[in-house]
Amino acid sequence: MIHIERRESFSAAHQLFNPNWSEEQNDAVFGKCANRAYHGHNFLVTVVVKGEVNPDTGFVMNLVDLKELMMTYIIEPVDHKNLNVDVLMLKGQLPSTENLAIAFWKAIVDRISTFGATLHCIRIQETDKNAVEYFGE
Amino acid sequence: MIHIERRESFSAAHQLFNPNWSEEQNDAVFGKCANRAYHGHNFLVTVVVKGEVNPDTGFVMNLVDLKELMMTYIIEPVDHKNLNVDVLMLKGQLPSTENLAIAFWKAIVDRISTFGATLHCIRIQETDKNAVEYFGE
Amino acid sequence: MIHIERRESFSAAHQLFNPNWSEEQNDAVFGKCANRAYHGHNFLVTVVVKGEVNPDTGFVMNLVDLKELMMTYIIEPVDHKNLNVDVLMLKGQLPSTENLAIAFWKAIVDRISTFGATLHCIRIQETDKNAVEYFGE
Amino acid sequence: MIHIERRESFSAAHQLFNPNWSEEQNDAVFGKCANRAYHGHNFLVTVVVKGEVNPDTGFVMNLVDLKELMMTYIIEPVDHKNLNVDVLMLKGQLPSTENLAIAFWKAIVDRISTFGATLHCIRIQETDKNAVEYFGE
Amino acid sequence: MIHIERRESFSAAHQLFNPNWSEEQNDAVFGKCANRAYHGHNFLVTVVVKGEVNPDTGFVMNLVDLKELMMTYIIEPVDHKNLNVDVLMLKGQLPSTENLAIAFWKAIVDRISTFGATLHCIRIQETDKNAVEYFGE
Amino acid sequence: MIHIERRESFSAAHQLFNPNWSEEQNDAVFGKCANRAYHGHNFLVTVVVKGEVNPDTGFVMNLVDLKELMMTYIIEPVDHKNLNVDVLMLKGQLPSTENLAIAFWKAIVDRISTFGATLHCIRIQETDKNAVEYFGE
Repeated sequence: MIHIERRESFSAAHQLFNPNWSEEQNDAVFGKCANRAYHGHNFLVTVVVKGEVNPDTGFVMNLVDLKELMMTYIIEPVDHKNLNVDVLMLKGQLPSTENLAIAFWKAIVDRISTFGATLHCIRIQETDKNAVEYFGE
Repeated sequence: MIHIERRESFSAAHQLFNPNWSEEQNDAVFGKCANRAYHGHNFLVTVVVKGEVNPDTGFVMNLVDLKELMMTYIIEPVDHKNLNVDVLMLKGQLPSTENLAIAFWKAIVDRISTFGATLHCIRIQETDKNAVEYFGE
Repeated sequence: MIHIERRESFSAAHQLFNPNWSEEQNDAVFGKCANRAYHGHNFLVTVVVKGEVNPDTGFVMNLVDLKELMMTYIIEPVDHKNLNVDVLMLKGQLPSTENLAIAFWKAIVDRISTFGATLHCIRIQETDKNAVEYFGE
Repeated sequence: MIHIERRESFSAAHQLFNPNWSEEQNDAVFGKCANRAYHGHNFLVTVVVKGEVNPDTGFVMNLVDLKELMMTYIIEPVDHKNLNVDVLMLKGQLPSTENLAIAFWKAIVDRISTFGATLHCIRIQETDKNAVEYFGE
Repeated sequence: MIHIERRESFSAAHQLFNPNWSEEQNDAVFGKCANRAYHGHNFLVTVVVKGEVNPDTGFVMNLVDLKELMMTYIIEPVDHKNLNVDVLMLKGQLPSTENLAIAFWKAIVDRISTFGATLHCIRIQETDKNAVEYFGE
Repeated sequence: MIHIERRESFSAAHQLFNPNWSEEQNDAVFGKCANRAYHGHNFLVTVVVKGEVNPDTGFVMNLVDLKELMMTYIIEPVDHKNLNVDVLMLKGQLPSTENLAIAFWKAIVDRISTFGATLHCIRIQETDKNAVEYFGE
């Protein structure tokens, strides 16, 4: 059993604003992240996959396949998008980094399995200082 | 003569879209950067200042003062903002990294001088891969 | 259950020197880290917190609160200080990175709990090459 | 129980090519990594060790000793070498990052134990984007 | 006049060995870089371009065009290649980082001009610690 | 003419305190950097050298020689030292990063010349955010 990981990045706008709350409550809880006209980040996404090493390839899973899965199901749906407006997999949710990690997990967990490996972790770095890791439960 | 530099960061949304052009022309030139609902970045801003070393302090300029100038005149006006909508110093301009660097230069060049030093360069890193440097002319 | 993390930094002097040992024994074990006049580092501290995602905020814990806890109970007591001389939470201990991580854990573990989350890990990076992680047991 | 880690780097050439396969099959699976004349990387290796803190030193294990082990048994055998041709510990194996991590584990796991500590993880970063972690089972 | 830059990376094998010298002289001058079976690196290439800002786009030059030039004329010819064997633009030269920078300059200097901008600098980072910058004269 | 650079690091304690001033004046100007018991940093030092490429080696200057000069005349005199107390080349000066860069310049400028190359710049990064560059005049 060994872990392999691949990192990709995307750039997106978002806003943290709970529509069930007053404007005042949103500003009190989310501060400048509630800016009505949005703000944005460069996000780094790392997908960690675990499995046995295939003796014919030396690989847990071909990183070319992992990259393709990440580009198709994680990066393209959010890159240069507005996470509140443009992104189907976040519909009805606050686009916090936590919720983003859970959405990315759901988007690829079964697809990783078809390659004989197991999704271990989704890591999202929102800034140099803030990050989230989700292990699926 | 010696150069000192200070780096700060901000997060903002923007969109590259020329209102004098058709939608098609905007999409052709700006691609996914023209996304109508905006996207965003973590921007790194480095201000480089040059001058003589003061023998009493060992400093070209106190970095506490440089940091304060940067926070007040560069970072606070743009952090967690939408560069197309919220930012006075970019009014009437496309918020490209180039135009942002020129706007930041104008915002602090004279204020640096009052500390007996000279602004040398504004560097903005928009992503890991893209950056701009402006030397004032 | 999801992990969130926040990174802050501080700069401090320290010295590794066991007062119960001879000078020779200190030099043999600690080498240049035993320099009598001290040396120093920029330390990076990452606090990892785990918990459930609050559906109203999308947060495990508001990073503004986590940052405030870190600044008050971890960073301010050590930043621009001498870890052997100035720092109460290290009193009577060798200021190794290991002991520092344990001291930081004790300083915030209960305070994190009052926010409905659980401290998972203290990570301290002393240099590009050396780091420590403490999980509380 | 606490984790300490040390990072070192090396530069090496390699090629992914399974001698039991046809040229076509190698190109299909390994793509440009199968280039007959080799390619190469700067690899970052992090060794994570766990153990109790020694109250006399504040250390799980002296990093000077860990560095020496890493240099002698991991870095020197591979630095500025061709992993397919020059490296005994990879003999008969495809030099994938996964197999490299397992070989490094075997090279130092018992030697770490003689210092009263336990090897926890070998991490190898092959590029900015790709990494592997091995925990010994 | 403003500078813009774009960074890309490639991975390659090489060897420093002067065929006009004896083996001993090569080993004395190039040390482990002369390893007969090659070694390799992840190289980072930054291209810096200067020019006036186009008021219609806010750009010195569209980074999409710069990226395309870099991929076609710099990265693809060297990525996952052996610089001594596979690379036409280095034919007959020692593949030092210095010679690589000069070859990259020649490969794109005229092509940059056709976009109304001027090539300013080729920077190549061979490792975390070693880099070269070439300004064309 | 081409530029090559080499980066090394050191860890040191220091204090900014002008002995000709009152304690109050020192605290007002230097703030927490005046802490009487010192603080410290990991400093990164980059030396940039320029010259012609030697056609026999492909080098401006052998980086092995540059590294040796840096270790002997820059790094060893300051690594794991107290810049106010232990370092001859800073005697009688405030150990600001500016003064450090000038001292490092003087320490190697003539020695670089003996290798047929010219010292171009000393860069010192004191923290992630603060740096100094000195060009010798």
